Amino acid sequence: MRAGRRRTVARVRKTVGRLADGREIVYFDHDGAAPREPHDPRRLPAVQTAAELRHDPLLDEWVAIASHRQSRTHLPATADCPLCPSTGGRQTEVPTADYDVVVFENRFPALAGDTGRCEVVCFTSDHDASFATLPAGRVRLVIEAWVDRTRALGELPHVEQVYCFENRGQEIGVTLHHPHGQIYAYPFVTPRTRQQLAVARSHLERTGRNLFADVLAAERDGPRLVARSSHWTAFVPAAARWPVEVHVFPHRQVPDLPALSSSEREDLAEVYLDVLRRMDRLYDAPLPYIAAWHQAPVRADRSLAWLHLQLFSVRRAPGKLKYLAGTEAGMGAFSNDVLPEEAARRLREAGP
Amino acid sequence: MRAGRRRTVARVRKTVGRLADGREIVYFDHDGAAPREPHDPRRLPAVQTAAELRHDPLLDEWVAIASHRQSRTHLPATADCPLCPSTGGRQTEVPTADYDVVVFENRFPALAGDTGRCEVVCFTSDHDASFATLPAGRVRLVIEAWVDRTRALGELPHVEQVYCFENRGQEIGVTLHHPHGQIYAYPFVTPRTRQQLAVARSHLERTGRNLFADVLAAERDGPRLVARSSHWTAFVPAAARWPVEVHVFPHRQVPDLPALSSSEREDLAEVYLDVLRRMDRLYDAPLPYIAAWHQAPVRADRSLAWLHLQLFSVRRAPGKLKYLAGTEAGMGAFSNDVLPEEAARRLREAGP
Repeated sequence: MRAGRRRTVARVRKTVGRLADGREIVYFDHDGAAPREPHDPRRLPAVQTAAELRHDPLLDEWVAIASHRQSRTHLPATADCPLCPSTGGRQTEVPTADYDVVVFENRFPALAGDTGRCEVVCFTSDHDASFATLPAGRVRLVIEAWVDRTRALGELPHVEQVYCFENRGQEIGVTLHHPHGQIYAYPFVTPRTRQQLAVARSHLERTGRNLFADVLAAERDGPRLVARSSHWTAFVPAAARWPVEVHVFPHRQVPDLPALSSSEREDLAEVYLDVLRRMDRLYDAPLPYIAAWHQAPVRADRSLAWLHLQLFSVRRAPGKLKYLAGTEAGMGAFSNDVLPEEAARRLREAGP
Repeated sequence: MRAGRRRTVARVRKTVGRLADGREIVYFDHDGAAPREPHDPRRLPAVQTAAELRHDPLLDEWVAIASHRQSRTHLPATADCPLCPSTGGRQTEVPTADYDVVVFENRFPALAGDTGRCEVVCFTSDHDASFATLPAGRVRLVIEAWVDRTRALGELPHVEQVYCFENRGQEIGVTLHHPHGQIYAYPFVTPRTRQQLAVARSHLERTGRNLFADVLAAERDGPRLVARSSHWTAFVPAAARWPVEVHVFPHRQVPDLPALSSSEREDLAEVYLDVLRRMDRLYDAPLPYIAAWHQAPVRADRSLAWLHLQLFSVRRAPGKLKYLAGTEAGMGAFSNDVLPEEAARRLREAGP
């Protein structure tokens, strides 16, 4: 932490409750905020899930089959938003009149019971805000919520990987506009992580060096740099798959969010906002994006993995989207119409 | 071939020409059709490509960076369709007044020169047709075109895999409505194929059996069967990733389309049409889909691979699409809201 800089969060207060159907809800507040006293008066049926994991023999990968999700809430009117606080007249998924950051178990989970767990993370009670418009102190609280959930879900006996992410924008299928993210706790190591770690293992055996350290060293001063702080570097990857794609790496090898120091978390809040705001300035309209936290598996390869954030968008031009069509969805071979150095230049010029 | 069944194609006539900028064009006609005499009078600038392959160090995969594609033709009016035959007043990409099946090099290729080659396959001169409405004899001609191009492109020195596919529907990003497919000749083995073959190799070492044969044996009479003929079986995979997904396997192990016998090709034309027509009957509107031909690499693992067709759609309900969001695009972990047995039942009931 830089000398003289005020820590935006001194301590975090956690309040745990239950929704009417037994799902867990966890509030994260700045220490000193008024107490949260959740009471959910709804009469909710028990959550019915048909979540099932199936093994794809051709790719040796697990697929979640979740047929109960077909009936999930789809683009409700703002007045019906289930993520806004409850009011006298309307009970939502959050049974208090306000909140800062709140996490609860998803009512329509892709993973549940012994197939894992899905949680929703509301970033703010303000329906019309977005992650990029949050103050840094609030982002700091979101980071604490991710840290807490990564730890708590990683302690469940069957969970092998915890994934914090945000889908933003109807263009990528978001069904609720209220600013929120999700957390998936998988009972397996995901295909992407498995492959990254296999590549990192073979790189270590071949060179004696950590793969992620080598990538970071190559990008810290290069033509694809977007932003850099004391503890973090944001860059467009050399072989970007998406028209807008930024990777944000901590300078120190840590396996996951709980392993970040307090000053790394402070710094992350600023860098995250800086990059998201640059992304939103690229076009006339806010950018649809996916924010994906790559964390180490709970049990395996923790000294090999290197925590990083992958931010990417399907927007390739005003009014035009990149689709995953034949080459990507069929063969896994990506084609990108935007030169990564050009994307980085535009992002550098778009901020801070 | 069943006794007494007429062969829909006796012989195929191939006519090779050049477009004004030097790109190759190849006509496929039934033997006995009038001769094709392509002459392209346009003054076209030479194709400028910035196609470049970059290596992603974190996943050990190649990404095509093709910044010249940003300016490609995007949803032109029917009267401006570049895939319709030329008329007296308008020169298109096809410099004849008619055609049956025609293949030419893509003017906006993702792969070109020593990074590979991209071709366009027009299935019919009828702008308003679709693959599913073609007569079987025409599908047979398309199969001959795929066979020819798989052979011809596989002979280029740097090509490692030939991929025939069709993207259909604006929902998956199709920019030209005229019924057409594409062929990508990659200078590498694609990530999906590489992984399938690694899994098949380890299955062979462990069990002594071919992985694809085992999958086919398990699906030939099961609850996910969609259609079956003498030489082909179509089924919904047990761990389907997409709300509509059908795999079509030949009963005999063949590496690629050129290795199919004449009767297997005949039979394929019928089965392909049968399955596509069932898919189009699922909803009120024609289904957006991707048709992906999984062929063996040109040089490697040809005795391990097993040719198959993967048909899949992003349509999960009327008016609703499946998006690849955080879990799929970030972690490669798929979640499917439709039970594969239920999808198979609906497809069985939808035809023939």
